[in-house]
Amino acid sequence: LTLQTDIQPSVAPERFRDGMRRVAAACAIITARDEDGQRVGLAATAICSVTADPPRLLVCVNRSVSAHPAIVAAGALGVNIIPDGQHNLIQRFSGGTPREERFAIGPWRTGVSGAPILADALVAFDCRIVEAIAASTHDILLCEVIDLVTTEGGDPMLYFDGAFRSLTAAAGQSQ
Amino acid sequence: LTLQTDIQPSVAPERFRDGMRRVAAACAIITARDEDGQRVGLAATAICSVTADPPRLLVCVNRSVSAHPAIVAAGALGVNIIPDGQHNLIQRFSGGTPREERFAIGPWRTGVSGAPILADALVAFDCRIVEAIAASTHDILLCEVIDLVTTEGGDPMLYFDGAFRSLTAAAGQSQ
Repeated sequence: LTLQTDIQPSVAPERFRDGMRRVAAACAIITARDEDGQRVGLAATAICSVTADPPRLLVCVNRSVSAHPAIVAAGALGVNIIPDGQHNLIQRFSGGTPREERFAIGPWRTGVSGAPILADALVAFDCRIVEAIAASTHDILLCEVIDLVTTEGGDPMLYFDGAFRSLTAAAGQSQ
Repeated sequence: LTLQTDIQPSVAPERFRDGMRRVAAACAIITARDEDGQRVGLAATAICSVTADPPRLLVCVNRSVSAHPAIVAAGALGVNIIPDGQHNLIQRFSGGTPREERFAIGPWRTGVSGAPILADALVAFDCRIVEAIAASTHDILLCEVIDLVTTEGGDPMLYFDGAFRSLTAAAGQSQ
Protein backbone atom coordinates (compact mmCIF):
# COMPACT_ATOMS: atom_id res chain seq x y z
CA LEU A 1 0.00 0.00 0.00
CA THR A 2 1.31 3.43 -0.97
CA LEU A 3 0.45 5.92 1.76
CA GLN A 4 -0.34 9.29 0.19
CA THR A 5 0.77 11.40 3.12
CA ASP A 6 1.02 14.58 1.07
CA ILE A 7 -2.73 14.66 0.37
CA GLN A 8 -4.47 16.27 3.32
CA PRO A 9 -8.15 15.92 4.22
CA SER A 10 -10.29 18.90 3.44
CA VAL A 11 -13.82 17.64 4.11
CA ALA A 12 -15.55 18.82 7.29
CA PRO A 13 -17.54 16.25 9.29
CA GLU A 14 -20.86 17.88 8.37
CA ARG A 15 -20.06 17.80 4.66
CA PHE A 16 -19.05 14.14 4.93
CA ARG A 17 -22.36 13.35 6.68
CA ASP A 18 -24.28 15.21 3.95
CA GLY A 19 -22.47 13.13 1.33
CA MET A 20 -23.20 9.89 3.16
CA ARG A 21 -26.92 10.74 3.18
CA ARG A 22 -26.73 10.13 -0.60
CA VAL A 23 -25.61 6.52 -0.09
CA ALA A 24 -28.79 4.45 0.22
CA ALA A 25 -28.50 1.58 2.67
CA ALA A 26 -30.55 -1.23 4.14
CA CYS A 27 -31.90 -0.65 7.65
CA ALA A 28 -30.62 -3.08 10.26
CA ILE A 29 -30.86 -3.65 13.97
CA ILE A 30 -27.63 -4.73 15.67
CA THR A 31 -28.26 -6.74 18.82
CA ALA A 32 -26.36 -8.39 21.65
CA ARG A 33 -26.91 -9.75 25.14
CA ASP A 34 -25.04 -8.19 28.02
CA GLU A 35 -23.36 -9.97 30.93
CA ASP A 36 -26.61 -9.87 32.93
CA GLY A 37 -28.53 -11.49 30.08
CA GLN A 38 -30.29 -8.24 29.19
CA ARG A 39 -30.85 -7.55 25.49
CA VAL A 40 -29.35 -4.47 23.86
CA GLY A 41 -29.74 -3.17 20.33
CA LEU A 42 -29.37 -0.22 18.02
CA ALA A 43 -30.49 0.76 14.53
CA ALA A 44 -27.66 0.88 12.01
CA THR A 45 -26.88 1.07 8.32
CA ALA A 46 -23.06 0.74 8.45
CA ILE A 47 -22.88 -2.95 7.52
CA CYS A 48 -20.69 -4.49 4.86
CA SER A 49 -19.92 -7.91 3.46
CA VAL A 50 -16.21 -8.74 3.78
CA THR A 51 -15.53 -12.27 2.55
CA ALA A 52 -17.52 -15.47 2.04
CA ASP A 53 -14.77 -17.90 3.08
CA PRO A 54 -14.73 -17.78 6.02
CA PRO A 55 -18.12 -16.02 6.10
CA ARG A 56 -17.42 -12.56 7.48
CA LEU A 57 -19.09 -9.17 7.57
CA LEU A 58 -18.36 -5.99 9.43
CA VAL A 59 -20.39 -3.40 11.27
CA CYS A 60 -19.26 0.04 12.41
CA VAL A 61 -20.55 1.03 15.84
CA ASN A 62 -20.11 4.38 17.56
CA ARG A 63 -18.23 3.81 20.79
CA SER A 64 -20.43 6.36 22.56
CA VAL A 65 -23.73 4.49 22.08
CA SER A 66 -25.04 2.76 25.19
CA ALA A 67 -25.11 -0.69 23.58
CA HIS A 68 -21.43 -0.58 22.57
CA PRO A 69 -19.84 -1.88 25.80
CA ALA A 70 -22.32 -4.78 25.99
CA ILE A 71 -21.68 -5.78 22.35
CA VAL A 72 -17.89 -5.81 22.80
CA ALA A 73 -18.11 -7.61 26.15
CA ALA A 74 -20.39 -10.25 24.63
CA GLY A 75 -18.03 -10.81 21.70
CA ALA A 76 -21.11 -11.68 19.68
CA LEU A 77 -23.86 -9.80 17.89
CA GLY A 78 -26.85 -10.19 15.62
CA VAL A 79 -27.35 -8.26 12.37
CA ASN A 80 -31.05 -8.16 11.54
CA ILE A 81 -32.07 -6.74 8.14
CA ILE A 82 -35.48 -5.10 8.53
CA PRO A 83 -38.39 -5.65 6.11
CA ASP A 84 -40.13 -2.76 4.41
CA GLY A 85 -42.75 -0.95 6.47
CA GLN A 86 -41.32 -1.69 9.91
CA HIS A 87 -40.62 1.95 10.73
CA ASN A 88 -41.94 1.51 14.26
CA LEU A 89 -39.43 -1.22 14.96
CA ILE A 90 -36.47 0.80 13.64
CA GLN A 91 -37.52 3.94 15.50
CA ARG A 92 -37.75 1.97 18.74
CA PHE A 93 -34.04 1.21 18.34
CA SER A 94 -33.01 4.74 17.37
CA GLY A 95 -34.13 6.94 20.24
CA GLY A 96 -34.19 6.91 24.01
CA THR A 97 -36.41 3.86 24.44
CA PRO A 98 -35.31 1.81 27.49
CA ARG A 99 -33.36 -1.34 26.63
CA GLU A 100 -35.90 -4.11 27.14
CA GLU A 101 -38.81 -2.06 25.74
CA ARG A 102 -36.98 -2.01 22.44
CA PHE A 103 -37.65 -5.71 22.11
CA ALA A 104 -41.41 -5.47 22.86
CA ILE A 105 -42.28 -5.44 19.11
CA GLY A 106 -41.30 -8.31 16.83
CA PRO A 107 -40.76 -12.05 17.07
CA TRP A 108 -37.33 -12.02 18.75
CA ARG A 109 -35.50 -15.33 19.28
CA THR A 110 -32.10 -16.10 20.77
CA GLY A 111 -29.40 -17.08 18.32
CA VAL A 112 -26.61 -19.63 18.77
CA SER A 113 -24.32 -16.81 19.92
CA GLY A 114 -26.82 -15.58 22.49
CA ALA A 115 -27.65 -12.48 20.43
CA PRO A 116 -31.32 -11.60 19.79
CA ILE A 117 -32.39 -12.61 16.29
CA LEU A 118 -35.51 -11.22 14.58
CA ALA A 119 -37.38 -14.25 13.22
CA ASP A 120 -39.03 -12.28 10.40
CA ALA A 121 -35.93 -10.37 9.31
CA LEU A 122 -35.21 -10.48 5.57
CA VAL A 123 -31.99 -12.09 6.75
CA ALA A 124 -30.50 -12.26 10.22
CA PHE A 125 -26.81 -12.98 10.72
CA ASP A 126 -25.75 -14.51 14.03
CA CYS A 127 -22.09 -13.62 14.54
CA ARG A 128 -19.10 -13.84 16.80
CA ILE A 129 -16.78 -10.83 16.74
CA VAL A 130 -13.26 -11.78 15.66
CA GLU A 131 -11.67 -8.34 15.79
CA ALA A 132 -12.49 -4.82 16.94
CA ILE A 133 -10.56 -2.18 15.00
CA ALA A 134 -10.67 1.29 16.56
CA ALA A 135 -11.36 4.08 14.07
CA SER A 136 -11.71 7.43 15.83
CA THR A 137 -15.29 7.67 17.16
CA HIS A 138 -16.25 4.19 15.95
CA ASP A 139 -15.17 0.56 16.19
CA ILE A 140 -15.07 -1.54 13.04
CA LEU A 141 -16.31 -4.91 14.31
CA LEU A 142 -15.15 -7.74 12.08
CA CYS A 143 -17.61 -10.60 12.56
CA GLU A 144 -17.75 -14.25 11.57
CA VAL A 145 -21.23 -15.50 10.69
CA ILE A 146 -21.97 -18.66 12.64
CA ASP A 147 -25.64 -18.97 11.69
CA LEU A 148 -28.16 -17.18 9.55
CA VAL A 149 -31.91 -17.12 9.08
CA THR A 150 -33.66 -15.87 5.95
CA THR A 151 -37.32 -15.36 5.15
CA GLU A 152 -38.66 -15.98 1.65
CA GLY A 153 -39.76 -12.94 -0.33
CA GLY A 154 -40.35 -9.49 1.03
CA ASP A 155 -38.53 -6.28 0.27
CA PRO A 156 -36.17 -4.21 2.36
CA MET A 157 -36.59 -0.89 4.07
CA LEU A 158 -34.03 1.58 2.76
CA TYR A 159 -32.64 4.75 4.27
CA PHE A 160 -31.74 7.54 1.80
CA ASP A 161 -31.49 11.32 2.14
CA GLY A 162 -32.63 11.12 5.74
CA ALA A 163 -35.87 9.25 5.02
CA PHE A 164 -37.18 5.70 4.96
CA ARG A 165 -37.78 4.53 1.41
CA SER A 166 -39.16 1.49 -0.41
CA LEU A 167 -38.29 -0.38 -3.60
CA THR A 168 -40.57 -0.39 -6.61
CA ALA A 169 -41.86 -3.78 -7.65
CA ALA A 170 -39.22 -5.89 -9.39
CA ALA A 171 -39.70 -6.78 -13.06
CA GLY A 172 -42.06 -9.74 -13.17
CA GLN A 173 -42.92 -9.38 -9.49
CA SER A 174 -46.63 -9.36 -8.64
CA GLN A 175 -47.80 -7.55 -5.54
CA LEU B 1 -13.38 -7.50 23.37
CA THR B 2 -14.37 -10.99 24.50
CA LEU B 3 -13.32 -13.52 21.89
CA GLN B 4 -15.89 -16.30 21.72
CA THR B 5 -13.51 -19.04 20.61
CA ASP B 6 -15.87 -21.84 21.61
CA ILE B 7 -18.46 -20.83 19.00
CA GLN B 8 -17.47 -22.29 15.64
CA PRO B 9 -18.62 -21.12 12.21
CA SER B 10 -21.17 -23.30 10.54
CA VAL B 11 -22.21 -21.27 7.51
CA ALA B 12 -20.91 -22.37 4.10
CA PRO B 13 -19.73 -19.65 1.67
CA GLU B 14 -22.69 -20.23 -0.65
CA ARG B 15 -25.18 -19.85 2.19
CA PHE B 16 -23.47 -16.67 3.31
CA ARG B 17 -23.67 -15.28 -0.24
CA ASP B 18 -27.37 -16.16 -0.41
CA GLY B 19 -27.93 -14.32 2.86
CA MET B 20 -26.01 -11.27 1.63
CA ARG B 21 -28.24 -11.12 -1.46
CA ARG B 22 -30.98 -10.05 0.98
CA VAL B 23 -29.04 -6.97 2.06
CA ALA B 24 -29.96 -4.20 -0.38
CA ALA B 25 -27.10 -1.88 -1.20
CA ALA B 26 -26.29 1.15 -3.30
CA CYS B 27 -24.37 0.47 -6.51
CA ALA B 28 -20.96 2.10 -6.69
CA ILE B 29 -17.96 2.19 -8.97
CA ILE B 30 -14.58 2.16 -7.25
CA THR B 31 -11.88 3.83 -9.33
CA ALA B 32 -8.15 4.50 -9.25
CA ARG B 33 -5.29 5.48 -11.54
CA ASP B 34 -2.40 3.08 -11.96
CA GLU B 35 1.30 3.95 -12.06
CA ASP B 36 1.11 4.42 -15.84
CA GLY B 37 -1.76 6.88 -15.50
CA GLN B 38 -4.30 4.35 -16.81
CA ARG B 39 -7.72 4.36 -15.20
CA VAL B 40 -9.04 1.23 -13.47
CA GLY B 41 -12.41 0.57 -11.87
CA LEU B 42 -14.83 -2.03 -10.62
CA ALA B 43 -18.48 -2.18 -9.61
CA ALA B 44 -19.00 -2.71 -5.88
CA THR B 45 -21.58 -2.58 -3.12
CA ALA B 46 -19.32 -3.28 -0.12
CA ILE B 47 -18.98 0.30 1.08
CA CYS B 48 -19.53 1.56 4.58
CA SER B 49 -19.33 4.83 6.49
CA VAL B 50 -16.85 4.59 9.38
CA THR B 51 -16.54 7.95 11.13
CA ALA B 52 -17.19 11.60 10.28
CA ASP B 53 -14.21 13.06 12.18
CA PRO B 54 -11.86 12.54 10.47
CA PRO B 55 -14.12 11.74 7.47
CA ARG B 56 -13.55 8.06 6.78
CA LEU B 57 -15.27 5.24 4.92
CA LEU B 58 -14.22 1.75 3.98
CA VAL B 59 -14.53 -0.43 0.93
CA CYS B 60 -13.91 -4.17 0.71
CA VAL B 61 -12.12 -5.24 -2.47
CA ASN B 62 -11.38 -8.79 -3.59
CA ARG B 63 -7.63 -9.17 -3.90
CA SER B 64 -8.09 -11.29 -7.04
CA VAL B 65 -9.76 -8.57 -9.15
CA SER B 66 -7.54 -7.00 -11.78
CA ALA B 67 -7.96 -3.45 -10.41
CA HIS B 68 -6.79 -4.39 -6.90
CA PRO B 69 -3.01 -3.99 -7.35
CA ALA B 70 -3.45 -0.61 -9.03
CA ILE B 71 -5.73 0.67 -6.27
CA VAL B 72 -3.32 -0.36 -3.51
CA ALA B 73 -0.29 0.97 -5.40
CA ALA B 74 -2.06 4.30 -5.96
CA GLY B 75 -2.95 4.62 -2.29
CA ALA B 76 -6.00 6.54 -3.44
CA LEU B 77 -9.44 5.71 -4.85
CA GLY B 78 -12.76 7.17 -5.84
CA VAL B 79 -16.14 5.91 -4.60
CA ASN B 80 -18.83 6.91 -7.10
CA ILE B 81 -22.46 6.28 -6.12
CA ILE B 82 -24.43 5.55 -9.28
CA PRO B 83 -27.80 7.18 -10.11
CA ASP B 84 -30.86 5.10 -10.90
CA GLY B 85 -31.10 3.76 -14.43
CA GLN B 86 -27.39 3.63 -15.22
CA HIS B 87 -27.32 -0.16 -15.65
CA ASN B 88 -25.08 0.14 -18.70
CA LEU B 89 -22.45 1.99 -16.74
CA ILE B 90 -22.44 -0.52 -13.89
CA GLN B 91 -22.33 -3.50 -16.24
CA ARG B 92 -19.36 -2.03 -18.05
CA PHE B 93 -17.47 -2.20 -14.72
CA SER B 94 -18.63 -5.71 -13.82
CA GLY B 95 -17.51 -7.92 -16.70
CA GLY B 96 -14.52 -8.39 -18.94
CA THR B 97 -14.59 -4.94 -20.56
CA PRO B 98 -11.03 -3.68 -21.18
CA ARG B 99 -9.82 -1.06 -18.71
CA GLU B 100 -10.06 2.19 -20.66
CA GLU B 101 -13.29 1.17 -22.45
CA ARG B 102 -14.96 1.08 -19.04
CA PHE B 103 -14.61 4.85 -18.89
CA ALA B 104 -16.10 5.51 -22.36
CA ILE B 105 -19.56 6.22 -20.85
CA GLY B 106 -20.15 8.99 -18.35
CA PRO B 107 -18.66 12.40 -17.55
CA TRP B 108 -15.47 11.24 -15.80
CA ARG B 109 -13.19 13.85 -14.21
CA THR B 110 -9.94 13.50 -12.27
CA GLY B 111 -10.17 14.05 -8.53
CA VAL B 112 -7.64 15.70 -6.22
CA SER B 113 -6.21 12.24 -5.45
CA GLY B 114 -5.86 11.39 -9.15
CA ALA B 115 -8.75 8.91 -9.01
CA PRO B 116 -11.48 9.12 -11.68
CA ILE B 117 -14.59 10.85 -10.34
CA LEU B 118 -18.00 10.57 -12.01
CA ALA B 119 -19.30 14.14 -12.30
CA ASP B 120 -22.97 13.06 -12.24
CA ALA B 121 -22.67 10.58 -9.39
CA LEU B 122 -25.23 11.01 -6.60
CA VAL B 123 -22.15 11.53 -4.51
CA ALA B 124 -18.51 10.83 -5.31
CA PHE B 125 -15.92 10.50 -2.57
CA ASP B 126 -12.30 11.21 -3.46
CA CYS B 127 -10.16 9.34 -0.94
CA ARG B 128 -6.67 8.46 0.14
CA ILE B 129 -6.26 4.98 1.62
CA VAL B 130 -4.97 5.11 5.18
CA GLU B 131 -4.92 1.37 5.94
CA ALA B 132 -5.36 -1.93 4.11
CA ILE B 133 -6.55 -4.69 6.43
CA ALA B 134 -6.29 -8.18 4.98
CA ALA B 135 -9.39 -10.34 5.50
CA SER B 136 -9.05 -13.69 3.73
CA THR B 137 -9.98 -13.15 0.05
CA HIS B 138 -10.54 -9.41 0.48
CA ASP B 139 -8.82 -6.26 1.70
CA ILE B 140 -10.71 -3.84 3.90
CA LEU B 141 -9.49 -0.46 2.62
CA LEU B 142 -9.91 2.25 5.24
CA CYS B 143 -10.10 5.55 3.37
CA GLU B 144 -10.01 9.21 4.33
CA VAL B 145 -12.27 11.45 2.26
CA ILE B 146 -10.28 14.40 0.95
CA ASP B 147 -12.93 15.79 -1.39
CA LEU B 148 -16.49 15.02 -2.41
CA VAL B 149 -18.91 16.02 -5.12
CA THR B 150 -22.68 15.71 -4.85
CA THR B 151 -25.45 16.30 -7.37
CA GLU B 152 -28.79 17.73 -6.32
CA GLY B 153 -31.78 15.37 -6.44
CA GLY B 154 -31.89 12.06 -8.19
CA ASP B 155 -32.37 8.61 -6.74
CA PRO B 156 -29.96 5.71 -6.35
CA MET B 157 -29.71 2.41 -8.14
CA LEU B 158 -30.01 -0.43 -5.66
CA TYR B 159 -28.88 -4.04 -5.87
CA PHE B 160 -31.10 -6.58 -4.09
CA ASP B 161 -31.70 -10.31 -4.60
CA GLY B 162 -29.38 -10.32 -7.59
CA ALA B 163 -31.21 -7.58 -9.50
CA PHE B 164 -31.02 -3.83 -10.02
CA ARG B 165 -33.90 -2.07 -8.28
CA SER B 166 -35.29 1.44 -7.89
CA LEU B 167 -36.87 3.43 -5.09
CA THR B 168 -40.51 4.45 -5.12
CA ALA B 169 -41.17 8.17 -5.05
CA ALA B 170 -40.60 9.71 -1.64
CA ALA B 171 -43.54 11.18 0.25
CA GLY B 172 -44.07 14.65 -1.17
CA GLN B 173 -41.70 14.01 -4.06
CA SER B 174 -43.03 14.88 -7.51
CA GLN B 175 -41.68 13.02 -10.53
